[in-house]
Amino acid sequence: MWPLRWQVVAAVAGGLALALETLPTVLRWLWAGRRRRRRPRREVLFFPSQVTCTEALLRVPGAAPSGCQCNLPHGESSLSRLLRALLAARASLELCLFAFSSPQLGRAVQLLHQRGVRVRVVTDCDYMALSGSQIGLLRKAGIQVRHDQDLGYMHHKFAIVDRRVLITGSLNWTTQAIQSNRENVLVMEDEEYVRLFLEEFERIWEEFNPTKYTFFPQKKRSR
Amino acid sequence: MWPLRWQVVAAVAGGLALALETLPTVLRWLWAGRRRRRRPRREVLFFPSQVTCTEALLRVPGAAPSGCQCNLPHGESSLSRLLRALLAARASLELCLFAFSSPQLGRAVQLLHQRGVRVRVVTDCDYMALSGSQIGLLRKAGIQVRHDQDLGYMHHKFAIVDRRVLITGSLNWTTQAIQSNRENVLVMEDEEYVRLFLEEFERIWEEFNPTKYTFFPQKKRSR
Repeated sequence: MWPLRWQVVAAVAGGLALALETLPTVLRWLWAGRRRRRRPRREVLFFPSQVTCTEALLRVPGAAPSGCQCNLPHGESSLSRLLRALLAARASLELCLFAFSSPQLGRAVQLLHQRGVRVRVVTDCDYMALSGSQIGLLRKAGIQVRHDQDLGYMHHKFAIVDRRVLITGSLNWTTQAIQSNRENVLVMEDEEYVRLFLEEFERIWEEFNPTKYTFFPQKKRSR
Repeated sequence: MWPLRWQVVAAVAGGLALALETLPTVLRWLWAGRRRRRRPRREVLFFPSQVTCTEALLRVPGAAPSGCQCNLPHGESSLSRLLRALLAARASLELCLFAFSSPQLGRAVQLLHQRGVRVRVVTDCDYMALSGSQIGLLRKAGIQVRHDQDLGYMHHKFAIVDRRVLITGSLNWTTQAIQSNRENVLVMEDEEYVRLFLEEFERIWEEFNPTKYTFFPQKKRSR
């Protein structure tokens, strides 16, 4: 009987060794699969952006396909990627922008408002009244806009999509900046950064409450 | 005697197999533990910054402790945190800045240059000659500076420390922006973002090579 018992011991030792051998491989494969399925969005857009046609992106829902015949390229560009990141909004969009005069970005924001997305805009009082500013059009469309009355500038350039994606960088939302300047925009699906920028937005939103506006604010010092 | 031999064979086989199979798992676990302990740097600085004394940070190495008696607070502020992030540089600092007139940030960059850190600066030609600009002082100190001659602005506001940490946001490096504006700066130890911004820096550095300067560039359109 003794030899038989030792055969069993040897078999068990071998089996255990095999199990230990395969287990980590199986776990790694499962973990890699999970990461493949869900990778948070991380993108960097550099400007100037190639000038491309964005009509297809900005089509009003239900309208006939644009099938645009214009001479502009119809491929992707930094601007089209920025528009896609914004147009992904389904519930809310917070905008905190120093200067906003880009017609395409203005149309994108109005489209989201028409779709029922809750849009809130904070901007700088010196730039919102300049020729070409989109702020007046957004207000006419019924979008809530608040502005500063400070000595300093409200110089942020960030957007928060569905309280999930932060879009921030050096880019003012103007055609000059998009087409001519060296600029960067980060598109980050990142809980920690979104939370910090949302807190900053809410602080400013409350501070710029129109009930606190004065009608003869001090002049700003020039930059 | 046979059973005794089988005992030895089985024990040795089992023991050896177990040791071989568990070793890689143990090593991976230890490595993961080490990475858990070393969390990459992630910080968001919001401005305007409280005005604080930064003399202690900007002391020349070997100089007597400042023991500053000024009336400013001597605690932390967004500016002091930005200075710390920059002064951590040991090997290299790339700066890509639209406007640079902050004396404290200028002193920090000169300190790093004196310590032997390789500093390279890219800036915008319209703003580098304005009164209070630090660019002339950096050039006098022997720091390499290159500027654009484009129609558009070199509007980036980022720094890369030791090819490891990216510092980027809406903040121009001016006293007005630091003390009066609503601004944000991200400090990110992130391989992917650092790589993308380093590539952008090197593209601009090469494009702004002084051998390519023309002496009567076109006027920029006004913003």
